[in-house]
Amino acid sequence: MRDSNREWILAQRPDGEPDMGSFELQETDVPEPRHGELLVRVRYLSVDPYMRGRMRDAESYAEPWDVGDPMEGAVVGEVIESDSDAYDEGDLVTGGGTWADYTVLDADDVAPVDPSIADLPAYLGVLGMPGRTAYFGLLEVGDPKPGETVVVSGAAGAVGSVVGQIAKLNGCRVVGFAGSERKVEWLTEDLGFDAAINYKDVDDYRTALDEAAPDGIDVYFDNVGGPITDAVFTKLNLDARVAVCGQIAFYNDEGVPTGPRKLPQLIASRATVQGLLVGDFATRFEEASQQLGAWVASGDISHRETTVSGLENAPEAFLGLFSGDNIGKQVVAVSE
Amino acid sequence: MRDSNREWILAQRPDGEPDMGSFELQETDVPEPRHGELLVRVRYLSVDPYMRGRMRDAESYAEPWDVGDPMEGAVVGEVIESDSDAYDEGDLVTGGGTWADYTVLDADDVAPVDPSIADLPAYLGVLGMPGRTAYFGLLEVGDPKPGETVVVSGAAGAVGSVVGQIAKLNGCRVVGFAGSERKVEWLTEDLGFDAAINYKDVDDYRTALDEAAPDGIDVYFDNVGGPITDAVFTKLNLDARVAVCGQIAFYNDEGVPTGPRKLPQLIASRATVQGLLVGDFATRFEEASQQLGAWVASGDISHRETTVSGLENAPEAFLGLFSGDNIGKQVVAVSE
Repeated sequence: MRDSNREWILAQRPDGEPDMGSFELQETDVPEPRHGELLVRVRYLSVDPYMRGRMRDAESYAEPWDVGDPMEGAVVGEVIESDSDAYDEGDLVTGGGTWADYTVLDADDVAPVDPSIADLPAYLGVLGMPGRTAYFGLLEVGDPKPGETVVVSGAAGAVGSVVGQIAKLNGCRVVGFAGSERKVEWLTEDLGFDAAINYKDVDDYRTALDEAAPDGIDVYFDNVGGPITDAVFTKLNLDARVAVCGQIAFYNDEGVPTGPRKLPQLIASRATVQGLLVGDFATRFEEASQQLGAWVASGDISHRETTVSGLENAPEAFLGLFSGDNIGKQVVAVSE
Repeated sequence: MRDSNREWILAQRPDGEPDMGSFELQETDVPEPRHGELLVRVRYLSVDPYMRGRMRDAESYAEPWDVGDPMEGAVVGEVIESDSDAYDEGDLVTGGGTWADYTVLDADDVAPVDPSIADLPAYLGVLGMPGRTAYFGLLEVGDPKPGETVVVSGAAGAVGSVVGQIAKLNGCRVVGFAGSERKVEWLTEDLGFDAAINYKDVDDYRTALDEAAPDGIDVYFDNVGGPITDAVFTKLNLDARVAVCGQIAFYNDEGVPTGPRKLPQLIASRATVQGLLVGDFATRFEEASQQLGAWVASGDISHRETTVSGLENAPEAFLGLFSGDNIGKQVVAVSE
């Protein structure tokens, strides 16, 4: 065990795109767990697009960080010291920690990790918050019926890749938007998507959708926003459902983005558009974890993680989310 | 009875705002009812914003008119000749006819009119399609709970004025947007709205809403779209519901209107935005008519109609909808 700790803090609020100057790696003491807490050596930490919102000085669904605050996020790690009856030294757990070598977690807020079901990084993706987001967002907001067409943006990301596979398990035609040929291949050849559109290689998304979704779109799970979403809205079927999970296209915008107005289109389609936050389903997380674990164990759902090695490279991993460097869930490997 | 008929036809499709050249009044023969039909002398006819969409050569929820087609719309009139057992000469009925002195209605598609409940024009407003739109749109899509704040745009129109009153009957705080001081007075002094904002006299709708809706907005019933709607979306409470009934601000736009993107805001509020068309509730029209009739008879719901006299002035009445000439329902008085 190291005798000191390293922890990333928010060094300054970004104006537009964050860069390395937004972050600073500080040397600190290894924290000490208090009653009911666990000292955890971080094995993997999660970087997620929503964190961009927390770097901004504006109230939103996630509390903003102050400059100087540690960067927080989900981690998977090993209990080094336990002041809780629920976990022992050596246990593998996952919970909300910091971008650090060592982090302290409240034993009440962690979940056990079973490496026989999936490798550790999967607990930050398909078996973590992104998987649960896909599960509730698709099934509760999207409400897909067999035979319907489901379109997913950010389809090769941590959430989108699970959304598409759950939609396939529900008997839907599934179309994904993703940003590279490798991603498109992964979606169609490994994950069973019926079609995938490389949005960086296609000029006219509406024409691409005519081919990929010839019967129109019944469910749209949106992680991205912008021109992809504009095109999808023109193809919504009667009584379509739109789950607005993320709008990564705009997370680095400081002003209010503009674009085609969508409300006039909703009258003809009577579509329902609903914002989605996984925390609203907290009382049902156990159900989602059980089901997702079973699907992963049975091979019904495949998953993939993109790993950047070294705590010192955590900001780089985070910044890569906005250029689409990741296939599947982006994680940082902090220790072996 | 006249020995000839006059009927307005679509003379040419408008490019942008319609004008008098969009319409032509033709002399025709008085039509003859076939089996199951009624010849009706039109007393009042309805002009409605949605008709602008039918003047456009584009598929939408209402069938487009061809150039040369008669202008269609709801009428109230007197049966002159009946080839149906359901109605006799002299009966007052309402149904979907044409902008004409005489029109033929299918007896299966008309409803009786009872002048002891309300004057005839009310059957084109609060007791017609606009009232039913308000009823189902507010109660089924808006789903207001006692104590919640309901905001209505186009509040002094045929639909909005009923929406606000039903919301009051449901124990809500009700705020309306309208376009003149006279309308604002009608809403707050006669209809019981808690507040009304004259959008033509206010620069900053958000600040106006801070005062009129200090607890935020739980339900938004949108008849208008545009800057009013943009401001309302910034004030939506958690789990707010938005019923998109009309977007009159854009009905004369030939291109796709642009504006602030709203999807990013939906994540924080988890608001639900849904398009609304009254025809989807056709199996429940009887329920709505009964309830609205009872509310009108008891005085729980007030109503008002703006009347333009003379069939020859029907286009003028229609065009006035887009400049907000009407308070309550705009009708045309065709005969005594």
